[in-house]
Amino acid sequence: MMGTQSIAFRNPPWIISAASVVGQKEGEGPLGSYFDVISEDPMFGGTSWEDAESRMMKLAVEQAINKSGLSKEKIRYLVGGDLLGQLIATFFGVEALSIPMFGVYGACSTMGESLGFASVLVDGGYADTALAVTSSHFAGAEKQFRFPLAYGNQRPLAATWTVTGSGALIVSRTRAGAKDSETKSGEHDVRVIGMTPGRIVDYGVKDSMNMGACMAPAACDTIAANLRDFGVKPDYYDKIITGDLGYVGQEIVIALLKEKGYDIKDRHLDCGILIYDREVQDTHSGGSGCGCSAVTLAGYLLRQLRTGKWKRILFVPTGALLSPVSFNEGNPVPGIAHAVMLEAV
Amino acid sequence: MMGTQSIAFRNPPWIISAASVVGQKEGEGPLGSYFDVISEDPMFGGTSWEDAESRMMKLAVEQAINKSGLSKEKIRYLVGGDLLGQLIATFFGVEALSIPMFGVYGACSTMGESLGFASVLVDGGYADTALAVTSSHFAGAEKQFRFPLAYGNQRPLAATWTVTGSGALIVSRTRAGAKDSETKSGEHDVRVIGMTPGRIVDYGVKDSMNMGACMAPAACDTIAANLRDFGVKPDYYDKIITGDLGYVGQEIVIALLKEKGYDIKDRHLDCGILIYDREVQDTHSGGSGCGCSAVTLAGYLLRQLRTGKWKRILFVPTGALLSPVSFNEGNPVPGIAHAVMLEAV
Repeated sequence: MMGTQSIAFRNPPWIISAASVVGQKEGEGPLGSYFDVISEDPMFGGTSWEDAESRMMKLAVEQAINKSGLSKEKIRYLVGGDLLGQLIATFFGVEALSIPMFGVYGACSTMGESLGFASVLVDGGYADTALAVTSSHFAGAEKQFRFPLAYGNQRPLAATWTVTGSGALIVSRTRAGAKDSETKSGEHDVRVIGMTPGRIVDYGVKDSMNMGACMAPAACDTIAANLRDFGVKPDYYDKIITGDLGYVGQEIVIALLKEKGYDIKDRHLDCGILIYDREVQDTHSGGSGCGCSAVTLAGYLLRQLRTGKWKRILFVPTGALLSPVSFNEGNPVPGIAHAVMLEAV
Repeated sequence: MMGTQSIAFRNPPWIISAASVVGQKEGEGPLGSYFDVISEDPMFGGTSWEDAESRMMKLAVEQAINKSGLSKEKIRYLVGGDLLGQLIATFFGVEALSIPMFGVYGACSTMGESLGFASVLVDGGYADTALAVTSSHFAGAEKQFRFPLAYGNQRPLAATWTVTGSGALIVSRTRAGAKDSETKSGEHDVRVIGMTPGRIVDYGVKDSMNMGACMAPAACDTIAANLRDFGVKPDYYDKIITGDLGYVGQEIVIALLKEKGYDIKDRHLDCGILIYDREVQDTHSGGSGCGCSAVTLAGYLLRQLRTGKWKRILFVPTGALLSPVSFNEGNPVPGIAHAVMLEAV
């Protein structure tokens, strides 16, 4: 326990494996070379967008297990979620694996929540290994939250593009095996040293096409709580990396934190900004979705820690809390952000 | 850690408070006298069914905090969920409380998941107190999963009736205060001694109007895992209490467990059967929903433990994993069940 909101792990769990599966557009983006699987088929061999997302998640989980060298029976618990109503991408994606599981939901912040809770299970001695996974699919998310693709609707410039991708990470109590099949000789091991579960922050923003603005206050709240609880300044981290605020939300979170006395401008990154080329790929404010931060972490961020480019990062996936029903009933879109602290050793 | 799936708590968290808020129909049922608040207004003063459910959940959380005698700032984490897409009943219900939170989803098994998760946070030393809450609302669930009430559609006899109710429990690291404002002198304290997180079990049943049949195999799987992991027979528990299998599912779970060599017939109860009067209230197979097991635990079950009528129970909320989309796409309805072990001391 640490401060009023954060958790400092006593036996920081090791990330022993990570896998990322993405669609073609993500494969063509700046991070393309970091992903394990790039599927040219947006249906992933399935028969519906929901089925496609389940198949994509299953592939990510299987890849992560394969890369760890463990059998699936050694994965004691799975913690996972996605954006679809009643988490059907997750449940139908992982059911065949028969791993005892916790379904979690924090909108696009879900990778922070699932990796954090998986780490709690391992740090607390409840599991030797636990797997965290999330996913999102552009077509499924458009169908769920906006319009079917066939409508060809116009997207405002503040809108983000839902990432088609699933990221899975395995955390372990023992350092042995902390280098997965892709880790090169001399590279660093990476562990989860703490987390800050988020509070819901509601500034009353009602524009679901501007989710960066909806989520930035929550990101600010969680980042400030983390810095306060651990008594550190932003330069404790090489990078502070939000999930999917995009260009619009990035400006807001930097400004809000500056008001609180924290200047993160020189070390802020956003997975939604990293994953697409703004000019070439026409994704407006950037990428979003449960899969956005998950594949950016499993693919790109972890690699920067393994190679020693960064020593310590604060990974802060951000979620916009809405449903098609809440939006149509005129509710605002509150935000939540869960922060996870990662360190290369 | 215990067996291959279960958790035995080392510092079993104490249940220091519990609150239940229900609708009129639940208040008129056999457990009516056990509930804290019975609202004659199905809208709970709100403007939509979703808003009504959020208000009901907020009331349950506030009641639980009030009964504990703690200020809300002392509740370190909240773990909660509901049946609505993207958990909007929960997020809009608890946002004003500003408690750091984890959103969880396991359909009607969610109270098992949230109480278990909250107990992990307390047992592991990550929180002095944590609050678990779930809710469901008959009208919101019908709108979400079936038909708007105004259609007046006919319900088959295997169907269950979604409970309008929200139950909240607070678990604490310290026994002091384990008697809440309603505990009488000489009554017992109650603690959470372990849990068995569930696996998804899919028998291929596709009838969303017969959820008892969909969930019974999962209940069987989790109960058998619990008995196996702890090396005990059914008579270790005074009662083994499923969430909402109803009359149809009860027969199936008893038969399936008998095939595995466990006879639970003389000690099985089901919250969905307990909560309504089958003859008078015309609820067909029984009650269901995230709120069903939550209010039955917070109201009735806990009272039996406090008064010493029962010494030890296995509480096994059961969830049917479907969404309107997965159902309409012809998918089966897999089940999941999370078991929590409660003991009077």
